[in-house]
Order: sequence, then structure tokens, then C-alpha cells
Amino acid sequence: MKLPIKVDITNAAPEVASLDGVLDELNAANKALKEGTCPGADFTGWLKPDAIVPDSELSRVKAAAERLRPSTDVMLVIGIGGSYLGSRAVIEALAEDPEKVMYLGCNTSGRYFNAVKKKLAGKRVAVNVISKSGTTLEPGVAFRLVRKLDNCSIKEILVTTDARKGALLEIAKKDGYETFTVPDNVGGRYSVLSSVGLLPIAYAGIDIDALVAGATECAKACDAESVETNPAYRYAGVRNLLYRGGKSVEILASFEPCFHYFAEWWKQLYAESEGKDGKGIFTASADFTTDLHSIGQFIQDGTRIFAETFVVFEDESSDCVVPEDKENIDKLNYVAGKDMNYVSDVAYRATAKAHRDGGVPNITIRLASLDERTIGAMIYFFEKACGLSAGLTGVNAFNQPGVEAYKKNMREIFGAE
Amino acid sequence: MKLPIKVDITNAAPEVASLDGVLDELNAANKALKEGTCPGADFTGWLKPDAIVPDSELSRVKAAAERLRPSTDVMLVIGIGGSYLGSRAVIEALAEDPEKVMYLGCNTSGRYFNAVKKKLAGKRVAVNVISKSGTTLEPGVAFRLVRKLDNCSIKEILVTTDARKGALLEIAKKDGYETFTVPDNVGGRYSVLSSVGLLPIAYAGIDIDALVAGATECAKACDAESVETNPAYRYAGVRNLLYRGGKSVEILASFEPCFHYFAEWWKQLYAESEGKDGKGIFTASADFTTDLHSIGQFIQDGTRIFAETFVVFEDESSDCVVPEDKENIDKLNYVAGKDMNYVSDVAYRATAKAHRDGGVPNITIRLASLDERTIGAMIYFFEKACGLSAGLTGVNAFNQPGVEAYKKNMREIFGAE
Repeated sequence: MKLPIKVDITNAAPEVASLDGVLDELNAANKALKEGTCPGADFTGWLKPDAIVPDSELSRVKAAAERLRPSTDVMLVIGIGGSYLGSRAVIEALAEDPEKVMYLGCNTSGRYFNAVKKKLAGKRVAVNVISKSGTTLEPGVAFRLVRKLDNCSIKEILVTTDARKGALLEIAKKDGYETFTVPDNVGGRYSVLSSVGLLPIAYAGIDIDALVAGATECAKACDAESVETNPAYRYAGVRNLLYRGGKSVEILASFEPCFHYFAEWWKQLYAESEGKDGKGIFTASADFTTDLHSIGQFIQDGTRIFAETFVVFEDESSDCVVPEDKENIDKLNYVAGKDMNYVSDVAYRATAKAHRDGGVPNITIRLASLDERTIGAMIYFFEKACGLSAGLTGVNAFNQPGVEAYKKNMREIFGAE
Repeated sequence: MKLPIKVDITNAAPEVASLDGVLDELNAANKALKEGTCPGADFTGWLKPDAIVPDSELSRVKAAAERLRPSTDVMLVIGIGGSYLGSRAVIEALAEDPEKVMYLGCNTSGRYFNAVKKKLAGKRVAVNVISKSGTTLEPGVAFRLVRKLDNCSIKEILVTTDARKGALLEIAKKDGYETFTVPDNVGGRYSVLSSVGLLPIAYAGIDIDALVAGATECAKACDAESVETNPAYRYAGVRNLLYRGGKSVEILASFEPCFHYFAEWWKQLYAESEGKDGKGIFTASADFTTDLHSIGQFIQDGTRIFAETFVVFEDESSDCVVPEDKENIDKLNYVAGKDMNYVSDVAYRATAKAHRDGGVPNITIRLASLDERTIGAMIYFFEKACGLSAGLTGVNAFNQPGVEAYKKNMREIFGAE
């Protein structure tokens, strides 16, 4: 089958005219990932997407989703960072009703908790609490609060945590909750294709087998030692050359609002993997055309610090066609009869050219369509390219020492007050 | 009354230890705004927030909101950029049920349109279409599509547009829709306290008199020729000194998710006002603590390009208290009995210190509480500081020439295909 991902680097020239100069570095990074000689190599279990979850656990994931979908109105996911961003990315992009999944434990806001609580009133609720340790502040506090909820009916609590140790595992055993595994060899931001992501995704009615199959299929293509055919090589190579050329911010832009949380997932993946030792290209995102009427002015004309990556979907129909209007007072008949996907495609082409002309080198990731296979492939593509990119940047892609600084300060303040 | 805004610049030192050096520039920028000698001076009507909307129109805004709130289930706002970001910012921050207002015409996605259409099924709908010209692609197409909706009941269409000319005014006259005014002397991104923003805000049940009163009160404080007492002077001064010192990205961070769209409004305000002529500090935003588990690593430890501005609310209670747990398996009893607003405050202090220690100079904007008066004051504060800041940067704060580039390309592509 044809890979549903293409990386078009035409608009990265003249800054990046060829990737040949980084092929050796990419090969070395690829080899270090595969052979487990890169820094943080204990956390590269995601390299084999069909081996992350054992069959027996995958069956339990599907069984839980099938049991709870008809018997509950909503799943409440309790987690922060990599414990929910992957599932939310996939659910917002693909689920028929993304609002069947709600999120708690991803901030410290009491107002937010109260707003979610209000929405839960009278509902039948499945809870999936996700934490490797069970002692992280935000999800831990949310779990305490959720167990006291009295305005809805909690039908079942599912726990995704460490397989052998930790506070959350202990609570699950004590209270008899079914448990799923946060794998030891996959860090949070790479965990979407483990039970961490797959359980909420399956609950949302998405075909997780197709998702994992798309990733597995992509893994092969992302292993080729070629800057022509390997999409991960192409993306990792270009963004590093742009970074070395002085670009300090990469904007991931899409024309589909349902891609918003995928960009949030991407931001964590790259920012946490590369943003260390005073290095890295900062990850920002944009929802176009919305943001063309906001930060668009700055991207076009402000301080020249940007690389830009467009994500476009090539399916042709959105089942939404611009109506003809005989009077044409608004002078918009030039788009009458067009599907909105075509209008978005024109907007993308117009923007890529305008930004290129304005001094923003850009990359386009072309995806076949918004479906499980493509999204699975895209997950693997971005993860693999991230591992390679960190290799080129010279950092450990799999740790996050900087996240500890504010946590340490919090413990000190709580201890002192 | 005490102004509900304080700008704390302690953590901007040592990069910015004093603002005395920019006082003359701030005074000059302030004078140019007031006397109408700055570039784009025709668009400074927002400087007098209580004079933007004539009393007769303000009465009609309130009457429409009072009429439609009980008789409809949802208001559909059709607009893009400044035509909806201001109202959405205020509604998400303050409305009891922000979902009573929905948004269309802010992108080109057919999928998005179909998703909103599905949510409208069976509902009684008030429509407010907002466009100065009526020929802008996104809202124009959305308005065409909305007039064809057959799955909901459109009770009334309200039009906010130019008072004297344009396609939308013509349509309104022909079809007998009540009209409200997009003022000539206020640009889109400064228009939230005109009918553009006030009509949806009033529909959402928010006290628009208090909002405007808060802004008016703040106008006086923001006029003082003092880097000690004038919050707009302080903020504009610090961010420009940090920009001159080499910072290229400013992150606006809050610990309240309901502030998310306020940050979106801020991003447009500053990016469109300052991001031109190859200048400006790029505007990004973060929702903490969510994003501390994502881009937090990069902010703490990655490439040193950041200034950061925290927005914190000083009200003490969120009506959400962490429960005690006698077993304390999760080891979180150290926060038991605390209101979540206190936990957020500790998270803020811990983060501001961690980022300062990590080389990110930061500013804190302290707000008395999340209410109309404070939000109104904050709107004026940010607008005035933006006008001053653009003066210091040496750009016209009130045009947006870069927004035309992709639009021109779109017209060419549509013309050729």
C-alpha cells in the first residue's frame, strides 16, 4: 500500500535546497535509535508500535471500551501531559462525538473542575485515571475529587499505571479497579499507542487496530536510509537545517480545527524532547485561516524567526458546498458550488506562497485523509522524526529534566507555608 | 476605587532593573496617541471606552440581548479575527454558560461547519453576523450557509457592520435585519467594547455596563506619566526593553483555562499591531499547569528566546477544596483542605521563580478577580499598553498590511482555476 504521508520541502528552499548534507547524521541517529545506543535508549519501545501492548491487554482494552460505550454517557480521563494529550489528539481528530470524552487532572483550576462537574450532572460516567506513579499533583487531586462526586453516577473506574509498583496501582488493588499498563520502555509523550492512549481512543469509537496498523506500516518507511523516500528523514533533516540556519520558532499549521489537539500533542513531543541544554526550535501552532487574522500579520511581516510546517489533508469532499446566491451582493459567487475542502486547499496554497515570499521557509506534510490509518501513520512519523531530530540536535530525546524545577519549588512552598 | 490591576516587574530583573530610561519614550508615545499624531491615529476611538457606542445604540444592544436570551437557546456569532475574538475572550472568562454562544465564519473548514450544524439541531438560534464589509470570505460563506440551515429554527438575524456602506449593510436593509455599528475609528482588534463585542457579550448574560465602567476607570490610570503608577507604562516599557535585549517570543501564561481565549485575543492584539516591518516580539500563550507538562520543558531549559507574562487572579476561593484522605496512599495530604485557587497560586509562584532561575525574565499582571470590572479594566490596559508599545517599537499599531498577502494569492488562484 502507498504510504499516506508525503513531506514536500519545495518551499524550504533556498534556505534548504538539499538534504544530502545531513544524510550521514540521519543514518547515525537512526542507527543509534535502532541499536539502543542513543541517550535514553531505555525509552524507545514505541519504535515497534505493534509490540507496545501485549495481545491479552489489547483484548481487555477493547472489551472495556465495548462494555462501557453503551452503558455510560461519558468517559472522564484523568491525566496530564503525555497521559492525555495523545488520546485527546486522536479523539478530537477522528471521533464522531469528541465530547463523549472529558478531561480532568490536567491543571490546578478549581473553576475548571466545577465547570466539568456541572457538565457531568445526571450522567453515567466511566473514569480512566492515568498516571505512572499516582502521586502527580494534578491528576492525584482530581482523582480524589472525582471519587467524592455526588451529582453523577460513576459506573466503573479503570486505572492505567505502572504494572508492578506505585501509589495508583496500590489504590487499584485495594479498591478492585481493573488496571492497564503504562509501559516501562515508553515515555509519556510517546505513549499514545500504548493503553494510555488506546483505551480512551477505543471508548470514543475509533478503530485502534487500524490506528496501530497505520503506525506499523509507517515504521517500515521511516527506517529507510534515504532522504528521498523516508518521510521522517525529510522532516527531521529540514527542521534541523532551518534551526541551524537561525530559525528559532517552528509553527505547525493546519486548516482543520479538529487538528488543534494534534498540534498540542506535537508541541509536547518536540518541545519536551528537544528543548533542553539551551537548544531546540520552539514549537508553536496555528489554526488557519482563523489565525491568519491574528498572528498571521506577524508571521508574514514581523521579526524573521520562523520555520513553518503545514499539515494538509488531501481528501476532496467535506460534504459542505458553498451555496450560489443569484443576487451576489457579497460578491462571493466565485466560490459558489465549491466544496469547502477545495476552499481550504486554495487557502493553504495561497498561504504557503505568501509566507515563503515573506521569508518564512515552509514544509508541507500531505496526508491522504482524516482516518485511523493515516493518523496512526502520522503519529509514528512524528515520533520517529522527533527521535532523529533530537539526534541531530545532540540532546536526549527521552528525558525532561526541566519539568522538575517548578515542581521542586512547589514542594518547598507547600513545606514552608 | 483601587485599580484592579497591578504590574509586578520584580522577576524582569536583572535584564530590566528600572523603567526610568524609557519614560521619555513612553510619554512621547502617550502624547502621540492622545493628540492623534501617531501613525494610524484615525483608529484610536477605543481610547475613550465610554464614548465608542452612542447611548441610543447601547440601549438597542441591551434590548436585543434581553429579548433573545429567553427566546433562543444559542447565539451563533459569525465573524473572524477582531470580529469575534474579543467577545469570545470575555464570554469564555465570565459567562455562566459559554456554550450558549457558538462561532462560525472563523475558518474555511467544512468539517467544522458540519460539526456546528449538528450541535444546532432542533435549537432556537439567534444569529449575529459581524463584518465591516460583508465581503470577507470566511464569514461571508458562513452567512450564506447559515441562511440555508434547515435543522434548527433561526429566530432573528442581527447584523453588525459599517454604518453607511458595504455589502452586509445592503443585505441587512434588503432583508430587514436590525443593524449595529462597526465604528469607523476603531480597528477590529480594538473593537471588543463596541457593539462588535458587546452584543454577544450581553447575550451571554454579562454586565456590559460594568465592563465599560471598568475600562473607563482604567483609562485614567493608564494616562498617568509615571512608570510607577501607570500599569500600561510598566507593561509596555518592560516588554520593549526585553525585546531590545534580544527576547523574540513573549509567552502569556495563566493558570485558569477559562482565560485561554483572552490570551488568543491578546495574541491578535499584539501580533497584528507590532508584527510588521521585520519587528516585534512574537506572541505565544500557555495554559498552566497543563503546558508545564508540555512546552514547560522548553521554556525552562531550551533555546533562551523568551520573555514571559503571567496573568494571575487574586480572588481566594474557587469553591473547590482538596479532600482529605486518611489512607494517603497518593501522598497528597499536604494539599488536603486547601482551596484549588491556593494550589494554583503556589504553582504560579513556583513557576515564576523556576523560569526566572532558568533565564526567562517575567512579568506578573495581578488582577483583583474574574469579574466584569476587572476584565473591562484589563481590556483597556492591554489595548493602551499595545498602543504605547508600538510607539516604542516604531510601528503603526493600527494597520495590518501583511494580512493581505495570502488573500491576494487566494484571489489569483480562484481567478486562474
